[in-house]
Order: sequence, then C-alpha cells, then structure tokens
Amino acid sequence: MAGVKRVLVTGASGFLGRACVAALRARGFTVHGTGRGPQTIPEIVWHQADLLTEAGRAQVIAASRPSHLVHLAWEARPGLYRDSPDNPAWAAASLDLAARAAASGTVRLLGIGTCFEYGPFDGNCVEATSPCFPETAYGKAKLAASAGFAAVPGGAWGRVFFPFGPGEPAARLIPALIRSLLAGEAFPCSHGEQIRDFIYIDDLAAAITTLLDSDLTGMVNLGSGEPRRLRDIIGWFSHKLNSEHLVHFGARAVTGADAAPTITADMSRLHAELGFTAPIGWTLGAERTLAWWRRKFEEAQP
Amino acid sequence: MAGVKRVLVTGASGFLGRACVAALRARGFTVHGTGRGPQTIPEIVWHQADLLTEAGRAQVIAASRPSHLVHLAWEARPGLYRDSPDNPAWAAASLDLAARAAASGTVRLLGIGTCFEYGPFDGNCVEATSPCFPETAYGKAKLAASAGFAAVPGGAWGRVFFPFGPGEPAARLIPALIRSLLAGEAFPCSHGEQIRDFIYIDDLAAAITTLLDSDLTGMVNLGSGEPRRLRDIIGWFSHKLNSEHLVHFGARAVTGADAAPTITADMSRLHAELGFTAPIGWTLGAERTLAWWRRKFEEAQP
Repeated sequence: MAGVKRVLVTGASGFLGRACVAALRARGFTVHGTGRGPQTIPEIVWHQADLLTEAGRAQVIAASRPSHLVHLAWEARPGLYRDSPDNPAWAAASLDLAARAAASGTVRLLGIGTCFEYGPFDGNCVEATSPCFPETAYGKAKLAASAGFAAVPGGAWGRVFFPFGPGEPAARLIPALIRSLLAGEAFPCSHGEQIRDFIYIDDLAAAITTLLDSDLTGMVNLGSGEPRRLRDIIGWFSHKLNSEHLVHFGARAVTGADAAPTITADMSRLHAELGFTAPIGWTLGAERTLAWWRRKFEEAQP
Repeated sequence: MAGVKRVLVTGASGFLGRACVAALRARGFTVHGTGRGPQTIPEIVWHQADLLTEAGRAQVIAASRPSHLVHLAWEARPGLYRDSPDNPAWAAASLDLAARAAASGTVRLLGIGTCFEYGPFDGNCVEATSPCFPETAYGKAKLAASAGFAAVPGGAWGRVFFPFGPGEPAARLIPALIRSLLAGEAFPCSHGEQIRDFIYIDDLAAAITTLLDSDLTGMVNLGSGEPRRLRDIIGWFSHKLNSEHLVHFGARAVTGADAAPTITADMSRLHAELGFTAPIGWTLGAERTLAWWRRKFEEAQP
C-alpha cells in the first residue's frame, strides 16, 4: 500500500495490542490507539472511547481517519470471555466499526479473531475448508465478525491460535505454570497430550503487521505452524526451573475445546502467500517469557 | 412460548414480509412492522424507520418492545443485491438490531438469510456440515449476520432457498418467464439442467412462523425439500400457457452460483425436528402464481 500509513489499533493497551503497537511503529506506521481507559502508551495518539457505543465508534474513526485498521478490542478476560453475554454486542460493534472505517476511506481492515471460530476440531485448521461450527458464544460472535470483515473491500481476518509471552494475563496456562513453579507450588494440569499451535507474542505482532501491510484478504490463520504437545511445553518450563516434580499431569479434567486432541494452524497463507517468517521462534520466545516472569517474581519479593 | 406474542417484522412490506405478516396474524401474533416507507399494510402497527441508522433501530425496538423478532430487511433488489456495497452495513445493522432486541427482552429472534451463505456448492445443503465459504458480498454479509443471530440467546437463522409466488419481483425467473409467455414473447434461458429447491411464498411464511414459534435455535434451512430441475419448472409454466415454442433453452450463459448444478435444502430440521408440513405445495402454489400474473396481465390490457 502506498501513501500515508496511519493505523488505528483498537484494544491497543491489551496483551496483543501493545505488541502490535511496537511492531507497527517499527514498520513505519503512524499509530493511533483506542481503549476504554486513559492513555498508557505514550508513543502513540490515544483516543479514549467505548467502542460498544455508536458515538464511540464514530468519534474514534473521525478523530483518527485511519488508512489502516487493526481491530483487537473485545471481551477477553480469562474465564469470562467464552460465555460472556457481551459477545454478540462485540460482533455487532465490530461489523459497524468496519463498515464505518471503509466508508470513511480506510483501505485496509484487519480484524483479529481466534482458532475457536473453527470446530468441531478434526486436526489442522485450514481457512478455506475447515468447518466453522463453533460451540461457544465467543466463537460464534468472532465468526460473525470474521464474515463481516471478509465482506468489506480490503478486509482480512486473522485467526489467532495460542499466543504466549511477557505480559500475558496471569490466569492463562503458561503464566500460571511459571508462577506456580517459581513459588514452589504444585501445578495440577490435564493429561497434556493435546497438540496445539503456540506463537510468541512478538512473532504474532510481526505476522499481523505483515498481513496488514499486504493485499491478502479473507481469513488468515495466525499461528507458528509448529504443532507442540502441551506436555512438552509444560515440560520445557518445568525443566528450566528444575521443578518437574511439581507438575501433576492428569490431575485436572478437561472439557470443551480444551479436550480437542489437536488444534493447529495450517500456515500456508501467511508463510507461502506472503513469505512471512517468524523473527523470534519458540525457544527464544519461551526463554524471554521465563526471564520476564522471573524478573516480575523477584521484584515482588520483599 | 407462553405469554403475549408480539412480533416485530422488519422489511414487512416486501415480497416475503407481506406473506409473513399474514401468516403471523393467522397464528395469533400481534404484528408490528417496519420499513423505510410509510404504512402500506393497514392491519398492523407500523414504524417507519431506517434500520441502517442506530437511531432507527433504537426507535423501532423501543416503540414495539417485541417478544419476537423476524428480521427480513436487507438490500434485496434483483440485479443489485449480490454485489451491493450496502451489504456489510446491513450485516452490521442486523447484528446490532439482534443485540438490542435481546437486551430489551426479546426472547425469540429469527433472522432470514439465504442458501447463498453456503458454498462452494456440492449438492444438498445441510446446516451442520455444509461448507459456508460464499463468493458474493451478499452471501458473505448474510453469513456474518447468521453467525451473529446464532450467538444471541434464543436466536435462530433461516436460510431461504428459492421462493416464488404472487408479488415476486418481476425481474426474477418465474415472473419474467410468465410475463414473457403471456405477452407472446420469446424467453431465452439457460440450459435449465440446474437442480434447485423452490418453495411457494405462503409455505415459506408458514415455515417461518412455525420456526419462530418454536425453541429451535441456530441455522435452519427454509426450502421445500423437493429438488426440481429448472427445465421442469419452466416447462410446467410454458405447458400451462401452451407456449413451449417461446422457450429457448441454452440461449443464455450462466455464471457464478447460477451455474452450480445443485442447490437444494436438507429439510430435516424443519420437517423432522419441528414436524412442519407445507400447507400449499408446489403444484397449487404454481397454479396460484400463474393465476395471479394472468390477472395482473389482463388488468393491464387496454
């Protein structure tokens, strides 16, 4: 895309939002961010707004006049987001935001969804052929938003698999594991035989930036393309922390999508069509993540 | 569903809307209707509003406070709707309307979509398993709305196949055929080997009313369950009008979804799960349709 590149990032202060802001700035974008709270990222132009209201959406688009949009904002709190009654409202707001942005001259619109739009899961997820019959309110509403973004000229939709890295919400698997082990506490977990696609947060932000700055439209998986067993991921961290004895595989039952044997990403679109290669990768990403939590843990000691 | 049944029908003055209003009234619903124009259906409470605006949606929901919603309104003009740039805005408005209705106490929400949400077409369309990768802006936007309705508690989404009957827009296949033959004009058409599911408009309205008045959620095909060759449908009308010589099969090329060999509806959900049986059926429906156009034609003669 030629000309001025001014991107509006919704949900910019979140786990993925912050990583995207850094990657977009590094690629030369002028970055505007929006969120419900006051500005916490000093390097960008901030618009405080509630995107669940029409007034909020209109104000943010009018104030930022973006050539590019990265739409991350959604209900995403661990434990709440899957069944939140706000999911349909976020789908509606997302479609309206996309329509408004397109009408005001935004040429490139990238919404961010989830692998949980797929299902029932039967192995590797492929954008053009895998079934999309999600079970959760979150999956259904994200699927609605995905189809809406795909219907807008210049619209693309990224489906994020399992991101991890510094700043990840503490209740999720890898942070919960590291925090337990650093504290010397037992970590009861599932059997761990599930195969998943984990992607380091800065690699994900790089993928999003590459996708945004391309002409690719429609659905695009955002993973690493490297399937891993949960048991191996958990084992990697517990080995680094000499804490294998604290991990109890099989101590927790799994239900719903957590029980699906395999949720992995076919990455042909990003890797083959766009030539994207992740700059960090699993091992360095895991080391940085561990170092970050170790530092947090040490800072918290009296 | 117990208690007061007050239904809001959007797009109530359209081809399907009018049939639905009659069927809903016959089933005992108090009917509120809305459309962009002034009231043309005297038997119902009318709310003139532009549903593409938030103010219009808020006003209609507040004024009607429906227990039930049948959402038909969309860009539907023949020749325009498939690629209209308004499609994404209709998807956004539909999701917002559903979220607003649910928030204001509507317990049952039925959005009306299309078989063109399916694709690529590979035969009989089954809600739970057929691929939904539509090609047109219309199909993509309707698919977005379908997922949005499915994400709302009490939400269902009907996928209409090929409706026909009195009052159908004159540019569509059956009206165009009948009008040509009544005028003694040639009717060039495609090879006619395509298999489609046609449903008489009053049967469709009865199906919608039955579905609305049930607890069935998610996607529900709305067809007859009776596959027919276009050649046989065209042949039926031309035989009745002694005009087989005016029909020229193969004189027109077909493209896009019109070229799909088969677009038919698996009707298990409506027929088996709800026990629905169409009250009119193909033959009587076709006779009524022919009689209606014949009357229109005779009235127009000097």
